[in-house]
Amino acid sequence: MREMYQDDSLALHTDLYQINMAECYWADGIHNRKAVFEIFFRKLPFGNGYAIFAGLERMIDYLQNFRFSETDLAYLKSLGYNDEFLDYLKSLRFTGSLYSVVEGEVVFANEPIVRVEAPLAEAQLVETALLNIVNFQTLIATKASRIKQIIKDEVAAEFGTRRAQEMDAALWGARAAIIGGFDSTSNVRAGKLFNIPVSGTHAHSFVQAYKDEYEAFKAYARRHKDCIFLVDTYNTLKSGVPNAIRVAKELEGQINFVGIRLDSGDIAFLSKEARRMLDEAGFTDAKIFASNDLDEYTILNLKAQDAKVDCWGIGTKLITAYDQPALGAVYKLVAFENEQGEMEDTLKITSNVEKVTTPGLKRVYRIVNKENGKAEGDYIAMADENPQEEKRLKMFHPVHTFISKFVTNFEARELHRKIIDEGEIVYESPSVIEMREYAKESLELLWEEYKRSLNPEVYPVDLSQKCWDNKMRRIQEIREAVEKM
Amino acid sequence: MREMYQDDSLALHTDLYQINMAECYWADGIHNRKAVFEIFFRKLPFGNGYAIFAGLERMIDYLQNFRFSETDLAYLKSLGYNDEFLDYLKSLRFTGSLYSVVEGEVVFANEPIVRVEAPLAEAQLVETALLNIVNFQTLIATKASRIKQIIKDEVAAEFGTRRAQEMDAALWGARAAIIGGFDSTSNVRAGKLFNIPVSGTHAHSFVQAYKDEYEAFKAYARRHKDCIFLVDTYNTLKSGVPNAIRVAKELEGQINFVGIRLDSGDIAFLSKEARRMLDEAGFTDAKIFASNDLDEYTILNLKAQDAKVDCWGIGTKLITAYDQPALGAVYKLVAFENEQGEMEDTLKITSNVEKVTTPGLKRVYRIVNKENGKAEGDYIAMADENPQEEKRLKMFHPVHTFISKFVTNFEARELHRKIIDEGEIVYESPSVIEMREYAKESLELLWEEYKRSLNPEVYPVDLSQKCWDNKMRRIQEIREAVEKM
Repeated sequence: MREMYQDDSLALHTDLYQINMAECYWADGIHNRKAVFEIFFRKLPFGNGYAIFAGLERMIDYLQNFRFSETDLAYLKSLGYNDEFLDYLKSLRFTGSLYSVVEGEVVFANEPIVRVEAPLAEAQLVETALLNIVNFQTLIATKASRIKQIIKDEVAAEFGTRRAQEMDAALWGARAAIIGGFDSTSNVRAGKLFNIPVSGTHAHSFVQAYKDEYEAFKAYARRHKDCIFLVDTYNTLKSGVPNAIRVAKELEGQINFVGIRLDSGDIAFLSKEARRMLDEAGFTDAKIFASNDLDEYTILNLKAQDAKVDCWGIGTKLITAYDQPALGAVYKLVAFENEQGEMEDTLKITSNVEKVTTPGLKRVYRIVNKENGKAEGDYIAMADENPQEEKRLKMFHPVHTFISKFVTNFEARELHRKIIDEGEIVYESPSVIEMREYAKESLELLWEEYKRSLNPEVYPVDLSQKCWDNKMRRIQEIREAVEKM
Repeated sequence: MREMYQDDSLALHTDLYQINMAECYWADGIHNRKAVFEIFFRKLPFGNGYAIFAGLERMIDYLQNFRFSETDLAYLKSLGYNDEFLDYLKSLRFTGSLYSVVEGEVVFANEPIVRVEAPLAEAQLVETALLNIVNFQTLIATKASRIKQIIKDEVAAEFGTRRAQEMDAALWGARAAIIGGFDSTSNVRAGKLFNIPVSGTHAHSFVQAYKDEYEAFKAYARRHKDCIFLVDTYNTLKSGVPNAIRVAKELEGQINFVGIRLDSGDIAFLSKEARRMLDEAGFTDAKIFASNDLDEYTILNLKAQDAKVDCWGIGTKLITAYDQPALGAVYKLVAFENEQGEMEDTLKITSNVEKVTTPGLKRVYRIVNKENGKAEGDYIAMADENPQEEKRLKMFHPVHTFISKFVTNFEARELHRKIIDEGEIVYESPSVIEMREYAKESLELLWEEYKRSLNPEVYPVDLSQKCWDNKMRRIQEIREAVEKM
């Protein structure tokens, strides 16, 4: 196994059919025709009213380093691909362009969030990895944001690594959690690679490794100025909290007694009792940290019970997006260069109505009302339209088309930036902390009704008239072609 | 980011508190005392009656390569750890021993599946990564096995990469799916690294990239002898299946028309219609592949509707273990060397009854009835017991202790193997295909009642009398200590 790793690349992190298709394109001489693919998802996760986009930096890194290694090519040869095709793959680099919303952007269902314009075979080969990246990081950033909406200004710490779906999920999930609004992660490697805050204290095994709980807390305090003691190894109220208070008193002035952590039992009851005990001992500033399979629902309930929790540690439910562990973003061909070198719009139709795509090269705008600074909706227009020039914009529902409104005095902010221009990176990623700030600002554009965790209002994502007409025309053309068979 | 990757290691793939604890142990001079940790989970996933263990090869690789790199240490220094401690970390290697069940083994809740015997600080630092590895691969192997129980002898293909929780999940999940009984994966890198079968044909974009569906199928057939055509890009029954049949007829003798793939719409209806059309055209051997958010529940329903599906493509629901995306395996200290150099049993008690651990160094046996070759249950004994020597074994329920049975004429097969002996690997992993074979054989030991997907019987996992007595004694000791406070 190790041997194969030596020059392992991510070029084979793709589905076999992508390589089969690339081979056909190459054999038929259409591999370098320009293709336009869009990434979008059809449904918001968790019943949430919005999603937070994340994953761009990883996509850039992947595309920039896209190449087949020697062992990659040797493996493909063993599968039966011929030498000429492998020679073509050997020299292949990503020479296309990438357009994307930035990380931390608020995005919605059925709008293109990423656009790839590239030679057909290249665009096809990178599909799987791009979707894999966007689907996961956007999912976790969204879950984090959703949880943070409930936690509000209290501290939110991510520490799900041990329950994550393998190592990359822990690493990139930690990053996405910060973008979504979390304060820190326990994953040290994520702290190192992404320059994000790390946090953590000690585990039950630490208490077990010393003679007793009191000795364990003292041992911790000897080495760490900031102390948070985990109090539930033996008995929270009879042993844990009293020992924490005892050590805090004995070492008053020498340590900063930050507080205690509860990791089991009835958090509502225990936190209230612990608060009372800490206050009575004079530690009114000491914080109570809670963990143990928490998510937005349990936190909401704990708050309703007036639990005295100041800081929330979130593991499994966040890092796996437990209640909906996959975002279904797809990658669809919307335009393709024909034999004459002109771009033609393409459509996929299928038997599932909601899977019909919207053809053509498009742009996405956020329509912001200049009077109140709030977003009226997103507007998808054909690339040659410019809604900013219109005084009065008609926005209509993309399914129930009779529902429409006119917007005036608006600003149409284009959401996509050019990230890679024909293989050259023309964008510099901000820091992860800046992405978190951007997400916060983006959310301020939305009315509260779109942000509540239960039954949020549906934010409008509308097609321009031209975009709609183009879609209907293409559907009609394909129907006629099918009928003629 | 790239810069930091240069000498990136997985040593920092851990929770910050592990490093804080290691620092205390080191400062207090107890870092090299011998500790015994066990990995076990408390509840089987998916309401299944068993789990399939996977992840060992990755654990071995991780432990073997465990070391802090220069940039790891520089990062820790930036967090405030002192130079002497960092010097200690710099020279640190995993010098402990690892015992584990083998990959493909059938395992159950509340039995140790992995045991680490190592110097305390080492054992602590590797906890997070080991859990991360075991939790994910075991979860996916179990889900795959569960789905395979419904699919039976038909073909099961994994192709969830684009929906996986980042790249490692796709890669290691593909491997785990094979161990659990799947036939192939679409992930090419997994095929390369693990020497497992890969499969795949073409996507909707391929059909869109050619003048029409007929031309697209022909293009595919020109390059690939084995042809499976995806028939739902425009209209499955009016266009897709007729075009597939047309190409298969025109190229009869030149290609091997394997069959068609349905990826949307009503699979039950479409598969029956497609079967009829294929049969009428004389292609009675052509297979029908189905995909589109399938799992054991939808497959069971499709079979009940007499859907004519021969091969099943499973994506999202398998690779994310959609209905329960985390296995909660934990890593608990069960014995620790005291100041006198003797091993002492340790216990964690807490307010959640089910979180109380079973102290001491233990062994796990599968009790196989020699008459019928079926497993009577698993038996957890203290390390110095030898159930094989007993003629008549008393097995009693670990919660409802009044439920017991006596077993005679049995074989007690020890489940753990020694994998790493004081830092040296003493075990060679079989191939992934061999692991799949082993899983199949292991399942044959179980009565069908434990293997059904809905409401399976609970397989007995019992403690020896000595193990039980030891646990009760330790609980009593800790209770008394707490009462005295």
